[in-house]
Amino acid sequence: MSDAILQDPQDPQDPQDLQDLQARAARLDAEDPLAKHRERFTLPEGVVYLDGNSLGALPAGVPGAVADVVHRQWGELLIRSWDESGWWTAPERIGDRIAPLIGAAPGQVTVGDSTSVNLFKALVGAARLAAPGRTRMLVDATTFPTDGYIAASAARMTGLDLVPVDPSEAAAAMDDRTAVVLLNHVDYRTGRLHDLPALTGAAHAAGALIVWDLCHTAGALPVGLDAHAVDLAVGCTYKYLNGGPGSPAYIYVAERHQGAFDSPLPGWNSHAEPFAMTPEYAPAQGAARARVGTPDILSMLALESALDAWEDVDIEAVRAKSLALTDFFLECVAAYVPAGAVEVVTPLEHARRGSQVSLRTDGARAVMTELISRGIVGDFRAPDVLRFGFTPLYVGFADAERAARTLGHIFG
Amino acid sequence: MSDAILQDPQDPQDPQDLQDLQARAARLDAEDPLAKHRERFTLPEGVVYLDGNSLGALPAGVPGAVADVVHRQWGELLIRSWDESGWWTAPERIGDRIAPLIGAAPGQVTVGDSTSVNLFKALVGAARLAAPGRTRMLVDATTFPTDGYIAASAARMTGLDLVPVDPSEAAAAMDDRTAVVLLNHVDYRTGRLHDLPALTGAAHAAGALIVWDLCHTAGALPVGLDAHAVDLAVGCTYKYLNGGPGSPAYIYVAERHQGAFDSPLPGWNSHAEPFAMTPEYAPAQGAARARVGTPDILSMLALESALDAWEDVDIEAVRAKSLALTDFFLECVAAYVPAGAVEVVTPLEHARRGSQVSLRTDGARAVMTELISRGIVGDFRAPDVLRFGFTPLYVGFADAERAARTLGHIFG
Repeated sequence: MSDAILQDPQDPQDPQDLQDLQARAARLDAEDPLAKHRERFTLPEGVVYLDGNSLGALPAGVPGAVADVVHRQWGELLIRSWDESGWWTAPERIGDRIAPLIGAAPGQVTVGDSTSVNLFKALVGAARLAAPGRTRMLVDATTFPTDGYIAASAARMTGLDLVPVDPSEAAAAMDDRTAVVLLNHVDYRTGRLHDLPALTGAAHAAGALIVWDLCHTAGALPVGLDAHAVDLAVGCTYKYLNGGPGSPAYIYVAERHQGAFDSPLPGWNSHAEPFAMTPEYAPAQGAARARVGTPDILSMLALESALDAWEDVDIEAVRAKSLALTDFFLECVAAYVPAGAVEVVTPLEHARRGSQVSLRTDGARAVMTELISRGIVGDFRAPDVLRFGFTPLYVGFADAERAARTLGHIFG
Repeated sequence: MSDAILQDPQDPQDPQDLQDLQARAARLDAEDPLAKHRERFTLPEGVVYLDGNSLGALPAGVPGAVADVVHRQWGELLIRSWDESGWWTAPERIGDRIAPLIGAAPGQVTVGDSTSVNLFKALVGAARLAAPGRTRMLVDATTFPTDGYIAASAARMTGLDLVPVDPSEAAAAMDDRTAVVLLNHVDYRTGRLHDLPALTGAAHAAGALIVWDLCHTAGALPVGLDAHAVDLAVGCTYKYLNGGPGSPAYIYVAERHQGAFDSPLPGWNSHAEPFAMTPEYAPAQGAARARVGTPDILSMLALESALDAWEDVDIEAVRAKSLALTDFFLECVAAYVPAGAVEVVTPLEHARRGSQVSLRTDGARAVMTELISRGIVGDFRAPDVLRFGFTPLYVGFADAERAARTLGHIFG
């Protein structure tokens, strides 16, 4: 792990390569129409932050917005803020701000609870919407674990059989026994993007409903929920949406399903008349039907402010930059890292790539610790994966070059 | 609604009464050992805030704590804060700070999610812990609505029959068909305190498990969960615990049940090794088994700071002041409000009174609007109830006197 290796002309970190790639990075950054949005974030000095796929950076307006919620809305207005500060309606209002980023018309997204809790609502809700006689819930066998655990509980509690399936075999596994399919849009470990239009179409052709987990795509690439007739979807807001640590998740229930959506968590916030306080439950119409309890206002309004970073941002431009960034990072890794030191596990085809690059290597945990000590923040996923998330609103090409170069030094 | 009525010596707002009660209030405040704790809160000028049973006031240290979470922990340390700032362990750490306020030894309380979500975990968990062959879930028919709605869902999903019962008849209704009993410690509408030790004993005598909702007692009076061998309990933190609007709720699972507690929401945070990311679910030991998804850090750490207000506070002293305040308020209401104008619906016996006073009156909504316009903030519950919450850490006797006097003016 020496820097001296730069002196060796046979070394992959050839000075000419280095000059070329650094010059390319500077040019790409200068031409990048999204580069100016980096100002919308507060980033630590000297750090290349490639972990926005785990915890997004702090949007510049959030501290002021949170201070106002605490001092004025809570401290001064107190209980009046439920009306006067728009607290009560925040879940749907903020849902409608996330909606365009995931291709949803207004009135279908509500914010609150964790992704796991929303998954439970979505899966049980989907099982109850499914055609009678169907017995199976198909779930991505390579999924982020919580999805599998929650799916197992939802299947158990609705009497369905849980069938784990590799996403590449999911379409073939869908048949007239299938009630519900749960898939991740992007695999959290490999960064592989699954074909949402085709898999949604396959589920519908089999007469099943599909639930998509958008944690690793919302804010990174176009999703097109309405265009592809997705049934239900969930996602977190603390990755590419920069809502803050553990910020509230969201659930999308397609408008055509809302009237029959039967939540397993019918808290008072989902009641047609919450303040009537009637002992009989009558579900609200619209997205509010997926609410549960009292919304968590500090985190919710921090998220609302964070979404200001998307003002005038075209998600297609974000996708274009994301692919350019990950392409360029892969090119730099190929140039700087000795052959065989890392294996690229993220698909090279654009159509199958999310907004992260995952590299498999021996001793990945130690390598990531060393990278972080040198100011390159990615993360490690057991047993042997280095993850680098590329968040187009605040990561640039020079960041990608420096990250790959530092990785090369570690293997040098 | 005239102030001129003070001139009438036959009026209940007799100047002598007024002087006597104001002098008594001043003396009681001067003698109050908890009076100094009012400095631990930021309260709006000129307002008597009697709605802390709905949304607690802002503790003075919270703004600084939240600013640190946002600026330094999120903005600068970013992902490192999950370890370095203690984010990951916050749910159990903060649970252990709530524990002494509800009479629980450490290791039995975890913080996160809403009360409704925790109720679902507790009720399904209790149903799964119940002796085989039992068919009924008894639930307080006069409960806060969300408890009834969630109980109906939990009963439906565990195959139990939901049996609503008036709390006064709950003990008699418990028998060998009863799997689970859900009761509110204090009725949100009337302020009536139910006999937790006796009802818990009755449930156990019938071989059933009991779940208590502590939303309206935690921080207002001693609960004694361990002492009375309660099985499970849930509560919110935004009322007497002052955690902020919609701050995370908590769940208590008695240590003796933790090994068999089988959560319907087994999210990755409840896994024995969350970062192993294994497809097989293996539940954590201890309180963490009741966790679900990624904890909501901004709200969680605001709550942690809010709990500093309880430093060196004896909950028995809080109870003593609470009863003295509600006694004094009732005395002032009797002196100032024309006979027959309001009906006291909160029990007069101390053993059956929580920390609020509820008054029934015609036109309650308009009366509360008028009270608020005069700086007395309580709240209205449909159809005809005025609620006044007494939070002993920041409400004093002069506040109680002024509130009753203002109410008298409105009816004058």
